[in-house]
Amino acid sequence: MDPKSEASDYSRCCVAVHVGAGYHAAGKDGAYKRVMREACQAAMARLRRGGTAQEAAEDAVRVLEDAPGTNAGVGSNLNRRGLVECDAAMMSTDPDAFGAVGAVTAISNPIQAAHAVLQAGSRGPDGAAGLVPPMVLVGAGADRWAASNGIPVDADPRRKITDAALARYAQYMDRAFPPCSELLQDTVGAVCIDARGAAAAGVSSGGIALKHPGRVGEAAMFGCGCWAERRAAPHPAVSACSVSGTGEQIMRTLLARDCARRPGDMFGALHDCFAEFCATPALSAYPERCAGLILLRQCPDSGSTELGVAHTTPSMAYAYMSAAMPAPRAAVSRMAGPDQTSITAVRL
Amino acid sequence: MDPKSEASDYSRCCVAVHVGAGYHAAGKDGAYKRVMREACQAAMARLRRGGTAQEAAEDAVRVLEDAPGTNAGVGSNLNRRGLVECDAAMMSTDPDAFGAVGAVTAISNPIQAAHAVLQAGSRGPDGAAGLVPPMVLVGAGADRWAASNGIPVDADPRRKITDAALARYAQYMDRAFPPCSELLQDTVGAVCIDARGAAAAGVSSGGIALKHPGRVGEAAMFGCGCWAERRAAPHPAVSACSVSGTGEQIMRTLLARDCARRPGDMFGALHDCFAEFCATPALSAYPERCAGLILLRQCPDSGSTELGVAHTTPSMAYAYMSAAMPAPRAAVSRMAGPDQTSITAVRL
Repeated sequence: MDPKSEASDYSRCCVAVHVGAGYHAAGKDGAYKRVMREACQAAMARLRRGGTAQEAAEDAVRVLEDAPGTNAGVGSNLNRRGLVECDAAMMSTDPDAFGAVGAVTAISNPIQAAHAVLQAGSRGPDGAAGLVPPMVLVGAGADRWAASNGIPVDADPRRKITDAALARYAQYMDRAFPPCSELLQDTVGAVCIDARGAAAAGVSSGGIALKHPGRVGEAAMFGCGCWAERRAAPHPAVSACSVSGTGEQIMRTLLARDCARRPGDMFGALHDCFAEFCATPALSAYPERCAGLILLRQCPDSGSTELGVAHTTPSMAYAYMSAAMPAPRAAVSRMAGPDQTSITAVRL
Repeated sequence: MDPKSEASDYSRCCVAVHVGAGYHAAGKDGAYKRVMREACQAAMARLRRGGTAQEAAEDAVRVLEDAPGTNAGVGSNLNRRGLVECDAAMMSTDPDAFGAVGAVTAISNPIQAAHAVLQAGSRGPDGAAGLVPPMVLVGAGADRWAASNGIPVDADPRRKITDAALARYAQYMDRAFPPCSELLQDTVGAVCIDARGAAAAGVSSGGIALKHPGRVGEAAMFGCGCWAERRAAPHPAVSACSVSGTGEQIMRTLLARDCARRPGDMFGALHDCFAEFCATPALSAYPERCAGLILLRQCPDSGSTELGVAHTTPSMAYAYMSAAMPAPRAAVSRMAGPDQTSITAVRL
């Protein structure tokens, strides 16, 4: 089956987004839901115009990056030197490709650069040149690559620093070091399926507050922060996954890839994946496991679509929309107690 | 079994190193073998003094980084702006930990910084601080982290630029873009097992010649350039793997992790892993598959040890030494023809 030759079927289009697994103050639920709905609508509008899953995922994540209340793009956590440094990645099924940027300061929308890296890389080595295009670009080199590829960069990297982020930073610094669970870790992400049945997953993050400059988290690492794949017979499906939480734990477990590839029904797959994540011996030095994700799966034959949401953190905020829905639905899932995993499966 | 409580058994000690999968001019075989033997001897001397596998892997890779004829540390390929930018990573079984640096210019020995990141990270969040230590550090931030952690950095980053690298750079630039297979891609690496039965794997690379500044390759990506793990019953083993080749292909397939985790005998594991690598649909845009690796495996019960060497490239240079051997053995494996995979298994 060549997905490009497939007829367009707009009933397949769907999107889900998240603003992270972490701690979401109840008083801000309305603001989180508003921006997530806006992100879903941006993606769905693109899909309805015939846009690709990649384009829709970029559109959705850009809305979340531009929102000052999320830890991505504008409003991101400040690093130990008081600056915003961002990671972002995108993966797609058609073509089967990945691109990421890490520790970038100037790029206006990191997800836009990750998408451009994916596109440049998916063409393979330049025919005349034979040079292998980069899959992951970091730091000042990534900022320069973006600028030379027509991607907007901020003349002043302080544009992404909000008053709220500065206030949080000052508060953290005053108390020297706050407990990990109080630090805003809400990486954002989006997963989309387009009318041709292709899937894409995007993730974008300002990283851990007070992180060391140059620290790269799961949002720029292959297999960790996002995953998209097309599974063949006997159980054909497209899957797209976007992950949030403590990057170092997510990296060690390649969590996006692991969850997206699990066989079985949605609930069973997420249950098994998170049970193994929580029991990973390599994470025993951490007092708590912090991760959450959204996973979208569609069966190409039946067109049936399911969204899974799982998290070990106090809360996880997400929203979704299918072509049949008149408006997005948004929710903040909250944990009843500690040391639990919350799993939700929704049929779209 | 707590490996730390295990008695020391110096007959277990072993090391293997490589100077990459790529194209090694036959006239340089002697020089490659000399430096690989020196690296093996440095690691074995450390292991015989009771050093850890991590320390021995660092020692071996430092010798290879300092050798001007390899594409790591001094003598690395220059990027498109005529500068050396290095990636390096280390993974260990005891503790089960990973650390990496990417796109660094000032750190004198990138493997030393990767080892220090691994050690800092393996302690988990700082007790008083609660901050999660970084697992991957890139660019200028990584250089600063290293300097502030007592790791030597070069006052002049041009120290790593050799006359030969400059001549290659000029030649590449004159011809605009040489064919991929003519570019020096010989990432270096080492795998070690110590007297307590712990394993470590290290990898270090100057990356692809003429790479875009900020490009990070497999040598700084979790699961891609190196892997070390302790496998439990029913077939207990420690494994350590170090990979070389076209980074973007190795990243897409998480090749180090995939090969090290394959069940079965050494030859079968490497055969299956490379057969799948060569058939990976996501790599179909590339005209050729370029990868090679060394994989060390030891059964903790019997102490029996095996080294596997596999490559799809025209050549792969490696050396190894066990505690029972009076001197290291070095070899350059050359392919008889194109579109082949060479697999060698050696019982140490």
